[in-house]
Amino acid sequence: MNAQEVLQKVKDGSMSIEEAEQYFVRAPFEEMDFAKLDLHRQVRTGFPEVVFCERKPLEMLKAIYQRLYEDNGEVFGTRAGEEQAAAVREVIPEISYNPVSRILKCVPERKGIGCVAVASAGTADLPAAEEAAETAEYFGASVIRIYDIGVSGIHRVLSRLDDLRAANCVVAAAGMEGALISVLGGLVNVPLIALPTSVGYGASLGGVSALLTMINSCANGISVVNIDNGYGAGYNAALINRLAVRGAEHSRQTD
Amino acid sequence: MNAQEVLQKVKDGSMSIEEAEQYFVRAPFEEMDFAKLDLHRQVRTGFPEVVFCERKPLEMLKAIYQRLYEDNGEVFGTRAGEEQAAAVREVIPEISYNPVSRILKCVPERKGIGCVAVASAGTADLPAAEEAAETAEYFGASVIRIYDIGVSGIHRVLSRLDDLRAANCVVAAAGMEGALISVLGGLVNVPLIALPTSVGYGASLGGVSALLTMINSCANGISVVNIDNGYGAGYNAALINRLAVRGAEHSRQTD
Amino acid sequence: MNAQEVLQKVKDGSMSIEEAEQYFVRAPFEEMDFAKLDLHRQVRTGFPEVVFCERKPLEMLKAIYQRLYEDNGEVFGTRAGEEQAAAVREVIPEISYNPVSRILKCVPERKGIGCVAVASAGTADLPAAEEAAETAEYFGASVIRIYDIGVSGIHRVLSRLDDLRAANCVVAAAGMEGALISVLGGLVNVPLIALPTSVGYGASLGGVSALLTMINSCANGISVVNIDNGYGAGYNAALINRLAVRGAEHSRQTD
Amino acid sequence: MNAQEVLQKVKDGSMSIEEAEQYFVRAPFEEMDFAKLDLHRQVRTGFPEVVFCERKPLEMLKAIYQRLYEDNGEVFGTRAGEEQAAAVREVIPEISYNPVSRILKCVPERKGIGCVAVASAGTADLPAAEEAAETAEYFGASVIRIYDIGVSGIHRVLSRLDDLRAANCVVAAAGMEGALISVLGGLVNVPLIALPTSVGYGASLGGVSALLTMINSCANGISVVNIDNGYGAGYNAALINRLAVRGAEHSRQTD
Amino acid sequence: MNAQEVLQKVKDGSMSIEEAEQYFVRAPFEEMDFAKLDLHRQVRTGFPEVVFCERKPLEMLKAIYQRLYEDNGEVFGTRAGEEQAAAVREVIPEISYNPVSRILKCVPERKGIGCVAVASAGTADLPAAEEAAETAEYFGASVIRIYDIGVSGIHRVLSRLDDLRAANCVVAAAGMEGALISVLGGLVNVPLIALPTSVGYGASLGGVSALLTMINSCANGISVVNIDNGYGAGYNAALINRLAVRGAEHSRQTD
Amino acid sequence: MNAQEVLQKVKDGSMSIEEAEQYFVRAPFEEMDFAKLDLHRQVRTGFPEVVFCERKPLEMLKAIYQRLYEDNGEVFGTRAGEEQAAAVREVIPEISYNPVSRILKCVPERKGIGCVAVASAGTADLPAAEEAAETAEYFGASVIRIYDIGVSGIHRVLSRLDDLRAANCVVAAAGMEGALISVLGGLVNVPLIALPTSVGYGASLGGVSALLTMINSCANGISVVNIDNGYGAGYNAALINRLAVRGAEHSRQTD
Amino acid sequence: MNAQEVLQKVKDGSMSIEEAEQYFVRAPFEEMDFAKLDLHRQVRTGFPEVVFCERKPLEMLKAIYQRLYEDNGEVFGTRAGEEQAAAVREVIPEISYNPVSRILKCVPERKGIGCVAVASAGTADLPAAEEAAETAEYFGASVIRIYDIGVSGIHRVLSRLDDLRAANCVVAAAGMEGALISVLGGLVNVPLIALPTSVGYGASLGGVSALLTMINSCANGISVVNIDNGYGAGYNAALINRLAVRGAEHSRQTD
Amino acid sequence: MNAQEVLQKVKDGSMSIEEAEQYFVRAPFEEMDFAKLDLHRQVRTGFPEVVFCERKPLEMLKAIYQRLYEDNGEVFGTRAGEEQAAAVREVIPEISYNPVSRILKCVPERKGIGCVAVASAGTADLPAAEEAAETAEYFGASVIRIYDIGVSGIHRVLSRLDDLRAANCVVAAAGMEGALISVLGGLVNVPLIALPTSVGYGASLGGVSALLTMINSCANGISVVNIDNGYGAGYNAALINRLAVRGAEHSRQTD
Repeated sequence: MNAQEVLQKVKDGSMSIEEAEQYFVRAPFEEMDFAKLDLHRQVRTGFPEVVFCERKPLEMLKAIYQRLYEDNGEVFGTRAGEEQAAAVREVIPEISYNPVSRILKCVPERKGIGCVAVASAGTADLPAAEEAAETAEYFGASVIRIYDIGVSGIHRVLSRLDDLRAANCVVAAAGMEGALISVLGGLVNVPLIALPTSVGYGASLGGVSALLTMINSCANGISVVNIDNGYGAGYNAALINRLAVRGAEHSRQTD
Repeated sequence: MNAQEVLQKVKDGSMSIEEAEQYFVRAPFEEMDFAKLDLHRQVRTGFPEVVFCERKPLEMLKAIYQRLYEDNGEVFGTRAGEEQAAAVREVIPEISYNPVSRILKCVPERKGIGCVAVASAGTADLPAAEEAAETAEYFGASVIRIYDIGVSGIHRVLSRLDDLRAANCVVAAAGMEGALISVLGGLVNVPLIALPTSVGYGASLGGVSALLTMINSCANGISVVNIDNGYGAGYNAALINRLAVRGAEHSRQTD
Repeated sequence: MNAQEVLQKVKDGSMSIEEAEQYFVRAPFEEMDFAKLDLHRQVRTGFPEVVFCERKPLEMLKAIYQRLYEDNGEVFGTRAGEEQAAAVREVIPEISYNPVSRILKCVPERKGIGCVAVASAGTADLPAAEEAAETAEYFGASVIRIYDIGVSGIHRVLSRLDDLRAANCVVAAAGMEGALISVLGGLVNVPLIALPTSVGYGASLGGVSALLTMINSCANGISVVNIDNGYGAGYNAALINRLAVRGAEHSRQTD
Repeated sequence: MNAQEVLQKVKDGSMSIEEAEQYFVRAPFEEMDFAKLDLHRQVRTGFPEVVFCERKPLEMLKAIYQRLYEDNGEVFGTRAGEEQAAAVREVIPEISYNPVSRILKCVPERKGIGCVAVASAGTADLPAAEEAAETAEYFGASVIRIYDIGVSGIHRVLSRLDDLRAANCVVAAAGMEGALISVLGGLVNVPLIALPTSVGYGASLGGVSALLTMINSCANGISVVNIDNGYGAGYNAALINRLAVRGAEHSRQTD
Repeated sequence: MNAQEVLQKVKDGSMSIEEAEQYFVRAPFEEMDFAKLDLHRQVRTGFPEVVFCERKPLEMLKAIYQRLYEDNGEVFGTRAGEEQAAAVREVIPEISYNPVSRILKCVPERKGIGCVAVASAGTADLPAAEEAAETAEYFGASVIRIYDIGVSGIHRVLSRLDDLRAANCVVAAAGMEGALISVLGGLVNVPLIALPTSVGYGASLGGVSALLTMINSCANGISVVNIDNGYGAGYNAALINRLAVRGAEHSRQTD
Repeated sequence: MNAQEVLQKVKDGSMSIEEAEQYFVRAPFEEMDFAKLDLHRQVRTGFPEVVFCERKPLEMLKAIYQRLYEDNGEVFGTRAGEEQAAAVREVIPEISYNPVSRILKCVPERKGIGCVAVASAGTADLPAAEEAAETAEYFGASVIRIYDIGVSGIHRVLSRLDDLRAANCVVAAAGMEGALISVLGGLVNVPLIALPTSVGYGASLGGVSALLTMINSCANGISVVNIDNGYGAGYNAALINRLAVRGAEHSRQTD
Repeated sequence: MNAQEVLQKVKDGSMSIEEAEQYFVRAPFEEMDFAKLDLHRQVRTGFPEVVFCERKPLEMLKAIYQRLYEDNGEVFGTRAGEEQAAAVREVIPEISYNPVSRILKCVPERKGIGCVAVASAGTADLPAAEEAAETAEYFGASVIRIYDIGVSGIHRVLSRLDDLRAANCVVAAAGMEGALISVLGGLVNVPLIALPTSVGYGASLGGVSALLTMINSCANGISVVNIDNGYGAGYNAALINRLAVRGAEHSRQTD
Repeated sequence: MNAQEVLQKVKDGSMSIEEAEQYFVRAPFEEMDFAKLDLHRQVRTGFPEVVFCERKPLEMLKAIYQRLYEDNGEVFGTRAGEEQAAAVREVIPEISYNPVSRILKCVPERKGIGCVAVASAGTADLPAAEEAAETAEYFGASVIRIYDIGVSGIHRVLSRLDDLRAANCVVAAAGMEGALISVLGGLVNVPLIALPTSVGYGASLGGVSALLTMINSCANGISVVNIDNGYGAGYNAALINRLAVRGAEHSRQTD
């Protein structure tokens, strides 16, 4: 029973004012949830909930995947281990697993829009970079991967300038000293998402050093997500890409 | 002498192949600087260089402001102190100074496009928030300010939902525990720029606590800039806003 | 126009369902704000807003104090400096200032209820301890001060056991190694609020060491507030004390 | 032989003054232990000692559980592993183990008093939240669980306001950015125990980020326990709840 | 009235058992304070209380110095500033002040016993080293100063070996990398007190780096005090020196 | 051939000045090593080298133990694992292993001198405390163990005062908040060695919190060793104890 | 087609100016890569790429080694595990593995030039020291190893002075307090590379303490590489050694 | 009287064996100091001692400068303030002061050898960069300054490649994210000294972020000095440059 139905009943006398008042006094938050938060929910229901697999027990994970897949015809999860992938495959044989990105998904082929560039400094940063790339694709972006362009070989960056400049948003994954984002920030003119990774040893402090490098970058247009948070970087990039493709007016009407 | 001229001389024999080769072997970087980096320079020359005033001696600052103003007819600087503002006013009487944002500028009135929302948790966060807002305006955005909506009074956030949802990008400035961004992240569906501030004492560690809160946020669509980096937040927001307004195709053609 | 009035109008046809729906769709948050948050507002309006004076300009502070004092007949602020006190005295001559606690207030004499004990390890911890004590008094508690009972002279603690055990809640302020709270935790059977202070030098890290000591305490019944946050400690203690005095049923009815 | 008996013997001459003096000079601490610390001991003996199981060898743990169970007819331990639970089950077949809270206990059914609300931001915070809830129940509180109300979906918090406001004390468990406590702090008017958890990755620093968020909260009524210290949070909440239910006078008489 | 007197009264009937019981039940802590803690008090009263001058207001400091000097015929304080010294000189004209050690004292000439060596790595470490040296002297030790023997000129250490080996305890003050203590640890066979100083810049982190160096030293016989805590180092050294000179039996009899 | 013999040969002409000069120019360090460092070597050869077992491969460890045992008739090692103990037992069947202290030794019974007290806050601190106790015994001290006297039950400390005051040096092992040392520092009048342990979780930061507590202690006579460094604490205590027993003159003559 | 060929075609008319211009506008970075970066590439191709083995899957590692070995006739990798060594041995039976340095290589015997000294404080530092030594050898240096000369036995350093002073560059590996480098810095007059290691426990913080010690060293001529970065230390030392041997003019001509 | 003379006297009987033995037993360290450490002293006396001016009182500084200048005919100091410069000018009118580098010196013109490149990321890094440059010049190097080539404008780096590649050693000063060194590391083939500066704000943590970036750099040939340690960077670079110019054999002969 929605607000309109309640009001109709008040009008035709089939509900007392007191009952209706009760509904609205109690309602605000549900109301907000189902009506006011419409756009928000549209976003969340436009795609089934994304599963964060890490540390979820096998049986729980299987149940979650099965339910989401049945409800939505697709399912997408991050940080899945090999063993988890095997367990889910028992109930969804067509599930696909990427051991690099650790993404476990069953998603129909869709054509992405616009362009998101995902760069990585080294091959060791691929897990975070691939998580970002697959996430951006899942949320509708066309993605170009530009890997292994660490700044200690600056010509590797420069030789990929055309690709970098074709993007509406650039994600840059780097561990160790994390300097890649600053160089990119001077070369492109779109928002850059800095993705620090835990790659490194010693004073890399599990990625904190790369995070600090990136948050201190003096280049323009850079903002930073958590260490190894490829999902967050990819989601952000897809969001910006969608705005860029559709333009704002369109975007607000159709979301 | 540009590339075409050199090639013409090779063709008509007035320059030897060796001389031309020399030109091109030496050229790359200058070439890159003036040709390939065109778009980049266009961005940078579209607006005069932004001045970071902090710690610049008075005479140096006056000279910089005067030159930029003469060259561009406008000038915009951040982190200026009262004394610096007075000094620059000697050479540019029409300069305007905002002691809250510490922005010292002389910029013609322009109508902003799209919508960037700049939120702050408390009134003590205004310096960073205003720096972000004025910066976003300078780079072409229409800005709506939504101040003093800290999450310890959640109704303050909720009562401004319409404004928040009208924006193409939301900047949220907060010190102390920095929780505002997470609440906003669940309420809007556009990119959010988290702007930690140094407001607080004791375990706020000069803003590091707020930065950590924001970088760990589990809400979607959030990325973070440096502590008190209102300029970076505003620049990022303007960039995203412009993409949203123009749409990507347009954006790439006209930038 | 409240909910009942709107519904009455729907019933008698003087308002269309669409108009009413509009009201309720827009209403939730205002509704929540003014109705559902009643208890909350009552608490906040039961006492005028507490002023955090630090870094507020003199003119702004004078205006705030004057307005609050006129509206409420009392005013209470923390972290005030000598100069601020003098400025406010110009507009409220009867204001009283404690240079130790840095509390600047004009509050009518009230008899406190129950008992809150505020302990300090050394005399250097008095600013935080006194801020806690005066705050607890302001929020209605009777306070007993037990100062300079640092654990390196354990007999000082033991000789005050009767006072400590008379309290419904104990606040313990300590800097340097912050060990006082652990000893108290083994001696009393009521909630203890640990208040780390920035007293110390070298490896005290501005109070972080004391904070860590307290948060790691293995004694029962201890929880911790921010470094030098006497206000928070005093407020918490007053809250617990009020629950203890009134009992829960009474408390919920009269708040 | 207690003090009265000694004094009687002095009076009737069966003990010399020197012997008695010896008794009293040696006595103080035992005296304190058995007499002056009565209330304290009552608390500790009112419930058998709580067992911290982590890292205790299996045989030692079995012996401890068996002895405590025989002496008290009940036993309660925290941080128990699966293997430890199985080992204890060999000697106490009726022991019950909760793999989420990791609490291993055999406690008779008791009706709790008052109301403690235990909230959690996400499902990953359940181990700490459940440890808090079961501990509060063990120490006599009636507990209401309000799980998965993280602030990135603020409607989830708001929809549970009635439950939150029914409590005498609220525990809020959260990892990652730990923002939940600040939102709750603005919505309820009772003491809140902030329980940071080690949930998260990268810059969550094993829960230190959540701890910092909470200790810096600008909401009123909040104090903080150690990371993952569900036991401490639950104990504190039960203590406050008991004060609230009984009221202070009663409390001091019967404890 | 002491314990013996009370017991006498019980014996002769001039005090009831109940009254005496009351005395002893209330007594423990006072008893402990005045009887059992005798040795402890003797130590503390053997020397007047040491004054920590830092941040004490001038009037308060003058009063403290005057009272201690009148009561004890001597007075000794640490961390005094120039202005404080001048203020105290008004009331104790014969006071002496060392601007390097910042010790402000009026102590009769005494001949020290045994030998404590106080070493420093550089001249910038003198404030801490001198505070240690003067403190050790005040507590009865004969002190030999061995300054400016930093390990980057190892011959400086080696040339003073005879002096170092004559001591019963060695204090080593060093900032920056703090390596001196490790070298000394391999050269002498007595306890070494490592005294990190805040000398340095950048990654010296206000002395934390030197503290870490010293606490990690793999040489035998080293223990560490707080950064710049010359008083603590000197007190410890004097304590060890006294044990060494008197030998244990003597020491326990006469303390 | 020593210095005297060389000089004798120069005198009687059986060695040229050049040869002798060569000897002395080359000699300094060997000279220093074998002559000047006599006392030092005496200490080191008075006991066979102590073995730090951790991470040493089994075969290497067996060889080291066998050689040291053959050369010295005794052997003493720290941080040995169960597997290492079993391996060494193959070659030294009479070796004894303490799984708590992890000390693996074969040392003849000796009567200790003086008195070192080793205290621990909780039972979880026993590994470090026992390592300290056994080490002090190995280096000649008589040791009294005073375990499980954490300050959250202060009567436990007070009831052992006589034992604590009988010692020439007190070692106090504590993890978590590490407050024990400060209480002891106010009760005894001998040097105290603070031994922080890694016991704890969350904000204990692997023992860093306990270390910070101890280094900041405001009690007199305290110095600190590395986290879990029971060996260092025990060695220091034995050194101080020996000085106290023998007295300095004796000590310097016989070492 | 290189630049000369393009220019030739322009000259003989077989390529239009526009086509040529296109080539050069697109070319810069490739151009830079193959021409301007010649020296750089020469360096990199002078030796086959060094493999960082850690965390590389076995099959990938085998393929990389096989390809590099076939292409270059030699291969050199760091941070290899036992299992990885065994896997590579299947495809390159003549591979040699050093379980201490964890270097896995197949390199023809070459005579090193000049002299690099690699020192270590303790035997536990050998993995890092050996990685440095073998790396320096691989890049052409003659290496002298000076191990186990920790400063707590300073005579060990002094007895090796001649060896240390024979080197063109000294690498010093040390964990724990890391003091070795400061002592060496005062004894030799060539560049020193400080190599902190993760050896230690407790407050060694995984090598961060040693790193801080070294970076704060007040001795001249010291610079620091990452914790356990033996490769970096060895590479740097080889670079400096080569400059020293050849002298600059020669060096710049032949590189 | 040197060793030979002593031996001669032993031989001719004018000195007893006991006297000679005394000489040699006492001699080692002096011997080492004056003979064995010859090279070392030569270095130190080749240039007068460098003065670290910071925090030195004016009178002390004047005396030091005057003495050094009289003894050596030149004097060189770092970290001097304006007021210090003025004070020294009173006694050495010809002293020259650079307010950017804060170097206060009076050094005769000398022609530098070889080439050291000193680069800086921004103009705010000039104080550290200039300190390095002037220091390298003072120790004999010819220096080329390459300022304001931060990586967010990579063309600025590339356009200076020829200069960078002309150097025997490159110093790179950078604050904030400190990424410059990694880019340079990939472009030149000589040792690079990374010089982190304290330039930045917020999460730059006073230069610690830049230090971490640099120490984690994955480029080859990089080592790091302390934050703002321009002196250390310049000294190191001069040392390497001298080795490169002279070549090793020459270097060892003439030092």
